[in-house]
Amino acid sequence: MSKISDVALLAGVSTSTVSNVLNGRSNRMAPDTLVRVEAAIAQLKYRPSSTARQLKTGYTPLIGLLVPSMANPMYGFIAREIEALAQERYGFRIMIGNTYRDAAQEASFFDDLLAHGVRGVIIISSLIDELHVEAAAERGLVMVSYDRRATPGMTSIVDHVTVDSFESSRLATQHLIENGHTRLAFVTPAGRTMSRNEKIAGFLAAAKSAGLEKTAKVFDGTQVGEYGDSMMSELGRTQAGMLAALPDRPTGVIGVNDMTAFGLMAGFRDAGLAVPQDVSVIGIDNVFLSALMHPAMTSVRLPVPEMAQVMVERVMSRLADPSVPTQEFIFQPTLVVRDSVAACSHDDVGT
Amino acid sequence: MSKISDVALLAGVSTSTVSNVLNGRSNRMAPDTLVRVEAAIAQLKYRPSSTARQLKTGYTPLIGLLVPSMANPMYGFIAREIEALAQERYGFRIMIGNTYRDAAQEASFFDDLLAHGVRGVIIISSLIDELHVEAAAERGLVMVSYDRRATPGMTSIVDHVTVDSFESSRLATQHLIENGHTRLAFVTPAGRTMSRNEKIAGFLAAAKSAGLEKTAKVFDGTQVGEYGDSMMSELGRTQAGMLAALPDRPTGVIGVNDMTAFGLMAGFRDAGLAVPQDVSVIGIDNVFLSALMHPAMTSVRLPVPEMAQVMVERVMSRLADPSVPTQEFIFQPTLVVRDSVAACSHDDVGT
Repeated sequence: MSKISDVALLAGVSTSTVSNVLNGRSNRMAPDTLVRVEAAIAQLKYRPSSTARQLKTGYTPLIGLLVPSMANPMYGFIAREIEALAQERYGFRIMIGNTYRDAAQEASFFDDLLAHGVRGVIIISSLIDELHVEAAAERGLVMVSYDRRATPGMTSIVDHVTVDSFESSRLATQHLIENGHTRLAFVTPAGRTMSRNEKIAGFLAAAKSAGLEKTAKVFDGTQVGEYGDSMMSELGRTQAGMLAALPDRPTGVIGVNDMTAFGLMAGFRDAGLAVPQDVSVIGIDNVFLSALMHPAMTSVRLPVPEMAQVMVERVMSRLADPSVPTQEFIFQPTLVVRDSVAACSHDDVGT
Repeated sequence: MSKISDVALLAGVSTSTVSNVLNGRSNRMAPDTLVRVEAAIAQLKYRPSSTARQLKTGYTPLIGLLVPSMANPMYGFIAREIEALAQERYGFRIMIGNTYRDAAQEASFFDDLLAHGVRGVIIISSLIDELHVEAAAERGLVMVSYDRRATPGMTSIVDHVTVDSFESSRLATQHLIENGHTRLAFVTPAGRTMSRNEKIAGFLAAAKSAGLEKTAKVFDGTQVGEYGDSMMSELGRTQAGMLAALPDRPTGVIGVNDMTAFGLMAGFRDAGLAVPQDVSVIGIDNVFLSALMHPAMTSVRLPVPEMAQVMVERVMSRLADPSVPTQEFIFQPTLVVRDSVAACSHDDVGT
């Protein structure tokens, strides 16, 4: 196996420069130096010994990653991006857990991470109460929280990385309004998270600015069964059946995420309605499957690779230098127009 | 935090019985004892210290899990099942890596697992040459290989857990034949794995027993780009465009997996063909998304929860007792009929 001195020799730098790259301290390094060191690491397949590393740094080269469920394709996508970056760029591996947006499961995973000597953690959760996350950070975990903003008015010792969720659903709602839809629906599980609340607010704000507050409604369904692979889509499917039967049924419907929207499209078909001729549907997330739906589904893109990069970089730089202050990073979504939204002709719809 | 003696007291057993459960030595235990101990572990949220455990057992309570890509919903599903079982049943967490069916990436992950004190590994890969897997097992990893059989004629020190891949595609092909299809196609990436080879063999065998060997063809496409989220579906989509343009285009098409089949359905639509009226499509895997397609896609179910349970149990029991001999576990698939296959009327199709 290669040694750090082999990497330094090949890259033409000192071993401490290689060490700086491995430990995320490359901020002030000349870009071509960084490129040379990374190329040498790759060429020699250099891997620092994790035990030696832990003795020296006080932590093991693993990042803890908590996701609601790996079986949800959106989290699988995010997890892959995070894992690839952490591994290729820093030689860190990932310890992963499905924690189902459940604070007790999350806290139990934090205990295990600490027991394993893991210090860097990315948590995908968006629970409104984040006290257990702050408490774990107090115990020494360098924490990045994804899919929620910092709690307003609180000084957080946790980084926050998220898309602007308000804007995500505002964009989707605006697109329905521009297509002439006035009876609007937003479908979400009943359980509230910070990102769901922001999406609801964005939906209602867009409706209000078009004077549609009386005909824009939020429908929340109780989630049935465990947070596995199909819970979100089953919720959408059930809600679509209920919406289709309403006397003033909505003509433009937004799913809180793509999985819910996939279920909505299937549920409207079950009820004999055609998408988009009878009802328009938009999702949020823009997972690759959106383009495979029939009709191809309009969705709101979240910049996942860009967000994953910031999450990994934040963990690494704050592990390297605990004095780096925490921050909030808000990314902007974009609308991806496909074929699941049609112009609303008010004569066509049942009244 | 609870101690092992608290668990023993609550369950009314000795601490060594609790220890046996925690270390996977529950084979000869009375079922109600096992249930009581598990309930007590859950109620007290008992977690053995991983350092103490590693000192005592020589390994850390982590299972290494190698998947081709977490962004593929099938692997996300399997990974979730494995993680949930390992965690809830044994208190083991998962160290996960995307290894893209690449032997060098897999070998590098094995190095890292050894460096981290991990001894139990589940690898999802199905590469034909498994020598690097056997070599890692020689170095002390307790290894379960998923999605391939043992190499014929070799005594393996690795467990093998897989669905009967030959039977998966034989079932799918038989279903097309029973619906009157004679021009059959099997679409797969060009790169061969053991499971892909078996699926091709099952396809050709079913065609041959119906006397259709001259009109049953395998189409393999070069995979473009990295093994990310959408590679398989893009391959299917491209291949569908090519198949649609053939003078004797196939009327019954099987995708090597559901993602490929989703791409096939989208690609046939792109080419102006209706599924299933003009062309029938079947997938293999039966991910939950199959039921959300339009038309809902017929697929071959793999018993994922059952296979995941055997994989986790094999790792745990062989970690506990290295004298347990390796085995091969072959599971049977089942056809799930939905709406993407229609009876073939030979007058309808272009000749």
